[in-house]
Amino acid sequence: MARVVVDVKLKPEILDPQGRAVMGALGRLGLSGVADVRQGKQFVLTIDGDIDDAKLADINRIAESLLSNPVIEDYSVRVEA
Amino acid sequence: MARVVVDVKLKPEILDPQGRAVMGALGRLGLSGVADVRQGKQFVLTIDGDIDDAKLADINRIAESLLSNPVIEDYSVRVEA
Repeated sequence: MARVVVDVKLKPEILDPQGRAVMGALGRLGLSGVADVRQGKQFVLTIDGDIDDAKLADINRIAESLLSNPVIEDYSVRVEA
Repeated sequence: MARVVVDVKLKPEILDPQGRAVMGALGRLGLSGVADVRQGKQFVLTIDGDIDDAKLADINRIAESLLSNPVIEDYSVRVEA
């Protein structure tokens, strides 16, 4: 069993109104000095067996095509344990 | 400037229909051996200055009250760079 985490976040040049709203709320709730907030998605995949290069390539393909929208989002894949 | 990442995920005992839908799609797209998929949220906060213990306590308080719903979600906070 392996855990693969795929983080999907908006590209830096894309406006993030949800993150902006969180940033405003943080100030009102007493957390000062917040320069920016970005909100993204995280997928935690539990995969049977070991992760070899072919499997990792499959996961990257799927992260790009299914889990993210490559027009506006970047993704990163990391294998845990 | 410090980057603080807050990961928010559903508690293990809470059903995740969105993750379940992704899991079904992964199989149809040719990624076999996926035992489970959980979907969560990720907030990346950019904070001015250094992160001391008081600031980290503030961030934990806000992660619990604003960024997550403690009834159904767990959160984790990590400081990057």
